[in-house]
Amino acid sequence: MLVMASEGQAIVEEESVVARREGCCSAYHRAVELIGKRWTGAIVFVLLDGPLRFSEVKVLVPDLSDRLLSERMKELEGRGLVARRVGEGPPVRVTYELTPMGIGLQPALAELGSWARHWLAADEERRRRHGTVPTL
Amino acid sequence: MLVMASEGQAIVEEESVVARREGCCSAYHRAVELIGKRWTGAIVFVLLDGPLRFSEVKVLVPDLSDRLLSERMKELEGRGLVARRVGEGPPVRVTYELTPMGIGLQPALAELGSWARHWLAADEERRRRHGTVPTL
Repeated sequence: MLVMASEGQAIVEEESVVARREGCCSAYHRAVELIGKRWTGAIVFVLLDGPLRFSEVKVLVPDLSDRLLSERMKELEGRGLVARRVGEGPPVRVTYELTPMGIGLQPALAELGSWARHWLAADEERRRRHGTVPTL
Repeated sequence: MLVMASEGQAIVEEESVVARREGCCSAYHRAVELIGKRWTGAIVFVLLDGPLRFSEVKVLVPDLSDRLLSERMKELEGRGLVARRVGEGPPVRVTYELTPMGIGLQPALAELGSWARHWLAADEERRRRHGTVPTL
C-alpha cells in the first residue's frame, strides 16, 4: 500500500516536472542534426572567415574526400546556408561562401569551439600522453 | 602561357588563403559530432533545466525509443557529460543530470536554439502552410 502510494506520488511529480519544462522543439532538433552531420559543422566553421575555393576547404578540413565534400556542399546549398559563386574568368574561379543564414551560426559555433577547447582538447592531450586514442 | 601564369597565381593565392586560416581543429570537430549525433543534442538540451528521470526525458524528447535513449544516456555518461544518480528509496529514484562538462554546453546550445527559431522555425511554418514536409 505504501509502495502504491509512493508510485502514485512519483507519477504526479513526474507529470509536474514535465509540465514545467519546455520540450525539445523540432526546429532546435533539426538545427543540432544539421550542423552535427558528419563534416557539415567543420565546413561551415572554415567558411566563417570568408569565401573559399573547393580545394581550400579540402586543405582546412583534412581527411575529407572530394566526393563527400561535394555532397555536403550541395546539401548546404540546398538548405540555404552556402552560396556557390562563379567568378569571371579566365580562369573561372568558383568560390563557396556562407549566406546570412550560414553566418548566423557563428555565435553557436564559436561557443561550441570554446567548449571543445576547454573540455575536449585537454582530454585529447591527456589521452595522447597516455598513449590511448580518443574515442568518440 | 597566360593560362599557365594564371594557374600559377591561383595556386599561390590558394596557399596564402590557407596559410592565413585556422583549420578545423580536431577537438571542435569532435564536439560538433558529439552533440550532433542523433538525439544527443536534444537530450542534453532538456537536461539543462535540471535533473530528470528516464521517463521524463522520454516525454520531453518525443519519438525516442527506450532502447535508443538508454544507449545515448550510457554514451553521455561514458563521455562525462551526464551523471546517473540513484536516490535513497523506497521507491528507488534514478535521475540523470548534467556534469559541469555537460552544463558547459549551455551557451552553445542556447545560441543554436536562437538560430533555429530564427531560421528554421519560420521555414518550417511556411512549408507547413504550403503542405510540404521539411526536409533535412
